[in-house]
Amino acid sequence: MSPTAIIAKKRDCQELSGDEIRFMVDGFVAGAIPEYQIAAWAMAILCRGMNEGEIADLTDAMLNSGIRLQLATQRPRVDKHSTGGLGDKVSLILAPLLACFEVDVPMLSGRGLGITGGTLDKLESYTGFRCDLTVAEISTQLQELGCVITGTTPEITPADRKLYSLRDVTGTVPSVALITSSIMSKKLAASLDALVLDVKYGSGAFMQNLEDARSLANSLVSTGRRMHLATRVILSDMNQPLGRMVGNACEANESVEVMQGGGPPDLVELTLRLSAELLVAVQRFDELGTAIEALKRTLSSGRALEKYEAMISAQGGTFSTRLPTAAAYTLESPGAGWLGKLDGQLLGQAVIGLGGGRTRLNDPVDPAVGLEMLVRIGDRVESNQPILRVFARTQANYERAQKMLLSALQFSETPIEATRLIAEI
Amino acid sequence: MSPTAIIAKKRDCQELSGDEIRFMVDGFVAGAIPEYQIAAWAMAILCRGMNEGEIADLTDAMLNSGIRLQLATQRPRVDKHSTGGLGDKVSLILAPLLACFEVDVPMLSGRGLGITGGTLDKLESYTGFRCDLTVAEISTQLQELGCVITGTTPEITPADRKLYSLRDVTGTVPSVALITSSIMSKKLAASLDALVLDVKYGSGAFMQNLEDARSLANSLVSTGRRMHLATRVILSDMNQPLGRMVGNACEANESVEVMQGGGPPDLVELTLRLSAELLVAVQRFDELGTAIEALKRTLSSGRALEKYEAMISAQGGTFSTRLPTAAAYTLESPGAGWLGKLDGQLLGQAVIGLGGGRTRLNDPVDPAVGLEMLVRIGDRVESNQPILRVFARTQANYERAQKMLLSALQFSETPIEATRLIAEI
Repeated sequence: MSPTAIIAKKRDCQELSGDEIRFMVDGFVAGAIPEYQIAAWAMAILCRGMNEGEIADLTDAMLNSGIRLQLATQRPRVDKHSTGGLGDKVSLILAPLLACFEVDVPMLSGRGLGITGGTLDKLESYTGFRCDLTVAEISTQLQELGCVITGTTPEITPADRKLYSLRDVTGTVPSVALITSSIMSKKLAASLDALVLDVKYGSGAFMQNLEDARSLANSLVSTGRRMHLATRVILSDMNQPLGRMVGNACEANESVEVMQGGGPPDLVELTLRLSAELLVAVQRFDELGTAIEALKRTLSSGRALEKYEAMISAQGGTFSTRLPTAAAYTLESPGAGWLGKLDGQLLGQAVIGLGGGRTRLNDPVDPAVGLEMLVRIGDRVESNQPILRVFARTQANYERAQKMLLSALQFSETPIEATRLIAEI
Repeated sequence: MSPTAIIAKKRDCQELSGDEIRFMVDGFVAGAIPEYQIAAWAMAILCRGMNEGEIADLTDAMLNSGIRLQLATQRPRVDKHSTGGLGDKVSLILAPLLACFEVDVPMLSGRGLGITGGTLDKLESYTGFRCDLTVAEISTQLQELGCVITGTTPEITPADRKLYSLRDVTGTVPSVALITSSIMSKKLAASLDALVLDVKYGSGAFMQNLEDARSLANSLVSTGRRMHLATRVILSDMNQPLGRMVGNACEANESVEVMQGGGPPDLVELTLRLSAELLVAVQRFDELGTAIEALKRTLSSGRALEKYEAMISAQGGTFSTRLPTAAAYTLESPGAGWLGKLDGQLLGQAVIGLGGGRTRLNDPVDPAVGLEMLVRIGDRVESNQPILRVFARTQANYERAQKMLLSALQFSETPIEATRLIAEI
């Protein structure tokens, strides 16, 4: 087999065989096929697409480039994955919450890049928290606690790690086939019994519109089916941040609020729904309604928070119900009207500008900075009403952020309907 | 400017600016942009296309990566380029023929790769012939003879050389934008006054159908117009070899036959037409008819042959009117009928199998082997009639070629119309 011929085949819109796909992935990992051929192949895949069978073969090839996590207990194993969005801190709540229901949650997460935050960055707001657990440590913690949130280990899907770095610098990230195989290979390596995916669309998400999100969702579900992993997908709105907080420490604090029985309704709703889907999938409950009631009770009882605290400690972190944040500056509305639109890209870039996100993979992140949204889309806003709080290190940083934030907000002179959080299942 | 953002822009079907295109080409030549980014960019260009302005900018960026040949004389400067086809030896005749009309022909040619032969390989059938003339040697020979056929020098369009090697191994050769800029940048570097392009289509050519050939032709002509180079394109049929001979020495011999006033009619017709287009373009003649008559007289007078002989000698070659060829084997028709189709790919591969072509750029080539076509598409053939002569080094080589050749020929039970050589201008 020749890499050039395989690239040309995909370029000419032909279907690749499993052998051809494995040849490319294995050759890349072994260093036998150079990066420039894989880059051209990835762009051909992005432009020409892959059918369900090809995506399953690609997922399988990536999965088999590394090890699978062995089962640590007799409990069913579940996980949630989100395609990333502003203020999305669901994982922090969902993992300890589900662990209270005798299921294991081995969550292998990533860091933030660009405008979407990373679960690991949020947890590292707790001093000492470790995200580099070994395969053995993951297994031990699952046995003891039933949940773990850590980085992917080097033994798991090395092909994905190598391919992702290359995609990041060759404009080949936004491909349904490549995103699907990247997500699903990692989830399959965790030997799950059920997976729920939260595919976000809107100005604060990777997928800007519902149609693209739907096409990714279909690809994820069909790959799950082909690979024998029970997979459900929720399409959720990301035209404004999830919850009120954006920024690492303040998102951790908001997660704690939810585990104390409070927190913003949209964040609670989505967390309960995603958790309930998994509990029903592994037959802990017969239907979503009863699962959601049980989950709510677990939150208000404080048991999820206990589990969360235990997880932070087990991974070396110093827990606190309220992590310190930087000085708060209040942004007032320049006029009156209804909040119509939020530019999530600008909002996210304002947080990066404050030091709360990264543009390059090794940039440091300041956990104490961020935003609090005081209004939501559809709200009536009066002139000079406080609309945002900004946690910034200096007045100058605040003023720079202020300009971006004001241009990120669009007001309407007529009432605006609030958007629905969960669009489709 | 960021290479990743420029790749993403083309991936998203947006137009690139001249600055962005120059940034990529210059960065690649300087080694600042890695091969994997250029490979992804080339695939995005292939899949998404480029408009006329972008192609002109790309051509310009490649041109400016190197030097231009300075004018050596006061004579107009012309050249012909063919997209390559089986048995195409027009360059060998056209360059010395035109030099008899007080025009300069600085022909920078390539080697054969795959099924299409290379002009330089054909000329190297003359012992000692040099294809590595320096810029100074090219200039001197133009002053003395008015024609030269040699390889591109390292100072001319280094970006094209580097990009072409990468395209060759990343499945990014068949892009109208990339082919156009590759051809036109080299021709512009030769400081021509007029250029004629022979775009071939059919089973023995790079472009398999007339539509693709037409789209490349339009791109070449519009780029010529934008870059102020008088450019004409002829679309010619390559569903069977041009002339009777395929193979290096036997093609050189056939070219000599034409310069002795003989040779196969199709080869003579195409050579006269391409040459006449150039003589009219530089106003040596008012119209094609009179130019063709004058060109015919120059062939039958032997003056073109004298010029050819002088060129071979000037470049160190030992001229011979009849170069030796390997032992001839005659292939007879297995049945009766009309010759309907010829598979040019198989025919070309049979020649490679005999040792007369290369699959890798540094493979040696045996000049003495090849084929002679004794029939053409549309001819009536009787059972056991000789249809091909094969020049092979051994009986075993002949027998291997024989199988491929028989499967390359398709006979029809009803008469077949002969194809037209020149389809469009």
